[in-house]
Amino acid sequence: MNPVSIPQVSIQDEFWAPRQRLVRDVVVPYQWEALNDLVPGAEPSGTIANFKAAAGELEAAHHGFVFQDSDLAKWLETVGFVLQQQRNEALEALADSAIELIGRAQMPNGYLGTFYQLQKPGLQWTNVRDDHEMYNAGHFMEAAVAYYEATGKPKALEILCKFADHIAEAFGPEETQKPGYCGHPEIELALVKLYRLTGNTKYLAMSKFFIDERGREPLYFDVELAERQAAGMKERVDRRQMAYFQSHAPIRKQQSAEGHAVRAVYLFAGATDIADEYEDSSLLESVRALWNNTVQRRMYVTGGIGSSDAFEAFSFDYDLPNERAYAETCAAIGLMNWGHRLLQIEADSKYADIMERTLYNGLLSGISLDGRSYFYVNPLEVWPVISGKRDDIPGATLRRQPWFGCACCPPNIARLIASLGRYIYSVNEEELYVHLYIGSRVAREFGGRQVTVTQRTEYPWNGVADFQLQTDGPVDFTLALRLPGWCNDIKVKVNGQPVDPALIEVKGYAKLRRAWNSGDRIQVEMAMPVELVRSHPELREAAGKVAVQRGPIVYCMEEADNGGNLRDVRLSSEATFGGRFEPELLNGVYVLESDHGWRTDASTVTDDLYVAKRYPLTQASLRFIPYYAWANRSEGEMAVWVREK
Amino acid sequence: MNPVSIPQVSIQDEFWAPRQRLVRDVVVPYQWEALNDLVPGAEPSGTIANFKAAAGELEAAHHGFVFQDSDLAKWLETVGFVLQQQRNEALEALADSAIELIGRAQMPNGYLGTFYQLQKPGLQWTNVRDDHEMYNAGHFMEAAVAYYEATGKPKALEILCKFADHIAEAFGPEETQKPGYCGHPEIELALVKLYRLTGNTKYLAMSKFFIDERGREPLYFDVELAERQAAGMKERVDRRQMAYFQSHAPIRKQQSAEGHAVRAVYLFAGATDIADEYEDSSLLESVRALWNNTVQRRMYVTGGIGSSDAFEAFSFDYDLPNERAYAETCAAIGLMNWGHRLLQIEADSKYADIMERTLYNGLLSGISLDGRSYFYVNPLEVWPVISGKRDDIPGATLRRQPWFGCACCPPNIARLIASLGRYIYSVNEEELYVHLYIGSRVAREFGGRQVTVTQRTEYPWNGVADFQLQTDGPVDFTLALRLPGWCNDIKVKVNGQPVDPALIEVKGYAKLRRAWNSGDRIQVEMAMPVELVRSHPELREAAGKVAVQRGPIVYCMEEADNGGNLRDVRLSSEATFGGRFEPELLNGVYVLESDHGWRTDASTVTDDLYVAKRYPLTQASLRFIPYYAWANRSEGEMAVWVREK
Repeated sequence: MNPVSIPQVSIQDEFWAPRQRLVRDVVVPYQWEALNDLVPGAEPSGTIANFKAAAGELEAAHHGFVFQDSDLAKWLETVGFVLQQQRNEALEALADSAIELIGRAQMPNGYLGTFYQLQKPGLQWTNVRDDHEMYNAGHFMEAAVAYYEATGKPKALEILCKFADHIAEAFGPEETQKPGYCGHPEIELALVKLYRLTGNTKYLAMSKFFIDERGREPLYFDVELAERQAAGMKERVDRRQMAYFQSHAPIRKQQSAEGHAVRAVYLFAGATDIADEYEDSSLLESVRALWNNTVQRRMYVTGGIGSSDAFEAFSFDYDLPNERAYAETCAAIGLMNWGHRLLQIEADSKYADIMERTLYNGLLSGISLDGRSYFYVNPLEVWPVISGKRDDIPGATLRRQPWFGCACCPPNIARLIASLGRYIYSVNEEELYVHLYIGSRVAREFGGRQVTVTQRTEYPWNGVADFQLQTDGPVDFTLALRLPGWCNDIKVKVNGQPVDPALIEVKGYAKLRRAWNSGDRIQVEMAMPVELVRSHPELREAAGKVAVQRGPIVYCMEEADNGGNLRDVRLSSEATFGGRFEPELLNGVYVLESDHGWRTDASTVTDDLYVAKRYPLTQASLRFIPYYAWANRSEGEMAVWVREK
Repeated sequence: MNPVSIPQVSIQDEFWAPRQRLVRDVVVPYQWEALNDLVPGAEPSGTIANFKAAAGELEAAHHGFVFQDSDLAKWLETVGFVLQQQRNEALEALADSAIELIGRAQMPNGYLGTFYQLQKPGLQWTNVRDDHEMYNAGHFMEAAVAYYEATGKPKALEILCKFADHIAEAFGPEETQKPGYCGHPEIELALVKLYRLTGNTKYLAMSKFFIDERGREPLYFDVELAERQAAGMKERVDRRQMAYFQSHAPIRKQQSAEGHAVRAVYLFAGATDIADEYEDSSLLESVRALWNNTVQRRMYVTGGIGSSDAFEAFSFDYDLPNERAYAETCAAIGLMNWGHRLLQIEADSKYADIMERTLYNGLLSGISLDGRSYFYVNPLEVWPVISGKRDDIPGATLRRQPWFGCACCPPNIARLIASLGRYIYSVNEEELYVHLYIGSRVAREFGGRQVTVTQRTEYPWNGVADFQLQTDGPVDFTLALRLPGWCNDIKVKVNGQPVDPALIEVKGYAKLRRAWNSGDRIQVEMAMPVELVRSHPELREAAGKVAVQRGPIVYCMEEADNGGNLRDVRLSSEATFGGRFEPELLNGVYVLESDHGWRTDASTVTDDLYVAKRYPLTQASLRFIPYYAWANRSEGEMAVWVREK
């Protein structure tokens, strides 16, 4: 039996718990203000106003994008996750009022979507390619599930089931239904969540229909377009191809991750769920091939994906430019979610490795240390002088922004952090898997006995994790400890007795099976030397360079520590590093320093642009900080990849 | 006294003479067909049709860009240069017919410009920022001068003087005149040519007016725009800034080369002429500062300039990306022309070095070996898989094109090659300067005696150049031989006797002053070892890389010789090279080979995108061809900069 994720996990550590509190105490209130257009200097959202207008309580036109509603949905889902950690009356009252507003905005037939209700009444479902109606629906479904799980209050769930029923009537294989699917995947995975909570198989079948129908000839988006044109509706010029929407071929025929990266990984996550629920091995095989293509050819060392600014998309194998990296925060979140689903089907640590790489690097970089500003785009190198001067780097910014007109990323990262507990463990009848080393407490029943496992660790700065069991009597189960791919030297001890993890390893997990007693202690000690990471030789933009990694953390150099012109810096292949935790720096980070850096000897440099000589080098001390923490000090250069000497 | 260029130089060698014949026998007829829309598969030009329509001989709307007329002008100028080498009745008849047509198209008041005549009659000179009327005029002036110098026929010159007189009435400092100047500089240098031929100082003064007025407050382009708006004329949205037109500041205040690269160097060339004619040392100082900025911070190793596709422009210091290089062929031509003018003012070989670098590399790359196709954009690296997949490399193509809708480059490179003779030497009353080593013959009078100098050389493949003098008696003058910057080992012999060039060097020229006799022979022997060139450490895109250069030729690797993934290739710092002239390859090139290349050992590479190990290397034989000759075989990767091991 597949292990499934455990949602009720309480995080208690020095790294993530403060970030969860930040989400609860700062981000959620801040984002509520943003949704209500109360943040000075931020781009207006208009989200709440849209719902009030749709409910007939405000005279206003729709503001913002067609997917503006989803910002409220993600906020509400975040609130659900926050309340799962701890109920909170004031926050719940706020959320309840929002849910009431959503309910009042819903049409009698169940439809919910302020863009069409306000701007195109009567034209619902005429452009599912572009207009995100089901995308918004999906996010609300996820929110309703999270809120119900937290509070047991049925209102949001009722609203969304009513909406889901409406969609199930409109879309499907029957003559009277449209054989369509959403231009932005999301509802596929959301319907599975709704099914898992409600047990209503209609929702599961609907998701499967969307997955199977996508990319089938005649392509629905063409059919729909022809209908709009026949009805005389205006179309704007659209350069996007079907691959942008992952509808260029049925998903079972797709070999590579194509198109808009967020859409792609949301779709693949939904398809993974369907493969799981239907035990559909051919679909699972397709999804795994797409996973391999993504993580073996199209992923940054930070776990970022979708390298191209053009259409926020995957481009092609090994095309991973650093300065021009797009690597949208939402795409990193989607990759982590997809990997998490694959991990539930097959407990192979390779999925957890990618989850972890993304989480600590290209995902976490999306939010500032104070929780108040966000990166949409996560470059691996910046050169500030280019700002506004070079057209080919349009997406990158040197500073996180307080909010975006297109505000998908800020609430997305908030909900990810708030729900992080559920990524740590998974469980089946006889096994408890530890995927992430994060200080936390989880309770679970095995063979009729309640077991509480407390994990204590200073991860990611220290590779020691301690597990302590509490139970009311001996209990038989397997504790499966992930052996991270970045680690070559892992010691495991049970009550002080060494156990060789190699002897009990199954797909990257050390499986400790025994009759456990209360008070038993398991210690994992992962050596965390600094590693110099090289890329596959086809990855041109990292050729001749190394990335500095320690444990799961990918490091970078910033100008604040190292001066400018970071491209001139070389790091010796045999470099050694000093390192220490600096509690005052960047909210507490483990910094790395090396005296084995080299720079061109400036005293030998003339005005000549080209010379037929080698410039002599001088030794340089270099300082590296975690990539996720960059751009929290003064503006300046940053580089992940350093030239290897 | 400044030495001046000698136009009547006959080229007789194996490298350039065939190219001049190609221009005469293939390019000129081909381009005439293009101008007449007779080339199958090429973008239509419409140029001749425009003139016929303006002359009232064809019922047709204006076709093409506002600067379409200039294509005919450049063609005619090329014909002038071709005829300077050797008169040719058939070609002359064709040119005369074109000149007659131009004359018939000219308005009674002297105005000539088919765009306004056909499309906006009566609105002439209302938008000199955008509409290239004086740019076209300038190219016709250059053509008229070249054609007159070749044939002595006055017709074209009369047409253009009439046009120049018309412009001189319309523009100037008087109340009744417009204080304007052209958005695309060109007329400034053309008027100086017209003045030098006719002796009419009005033309020189007009050029000076344009140079001085540019960038003065209130900015004329703003004034003119306001007038158009006041007249209710429609404007398209325009993101270009004043720097695009080099009108952001008076040229004397400009510190760096900004904006559209072709415009910039055409302007600076004109300003150099004015500084020369007026002995204006402050203007000359400004122009030299701009030159230094250009060649010390904004020029590719190939001599290409204008690195940014956005607005075909200079971007900023040391921003010289390779794949995304714009480096327009016309900008290289403009740089060479500018350097040539500076060289006439100050015989310093540093100007000739840049001229030569540009000529043999980033300029010559603009034309295919068969003369029938052209590069507008000259990248220093290509990766074919990006074609059409990445938005940030919009300009680059893997194949030269037969013609362009915007066809500035093809006729420009043709006229440069046809007129190459005049770049080789310059002269004053007592000195003959040799700037370029190109087999050629030049005749000149010193102290009343006719001297003919015959230069024989296999340059650029061989660094030996022989000069033989013919004179009807002893003659006293200085032969000043350029000591190229790329060369560290030069031997000079006079009639077999070694002369130490270091002892007679002045600003990079070895000055041989004596009483020469007929039959005297001077030999220059420039050692041509292969050099590994490194860039200034601020030039980020070449950091850690070397360019292979031999003599004036910059080399590149092509996939056809070296397989793919050229970024994986390393070249040892201490690499030695074998080399030989291969007469059958690429119309005859000197190829370089080295066994000191290295590649990742493919047998050690797995599917992993990132690994914490060093891949072992295997030795690789590498083959380099001259950069200018790339893309004349199968499509594939190309790289100038190679990683240094």
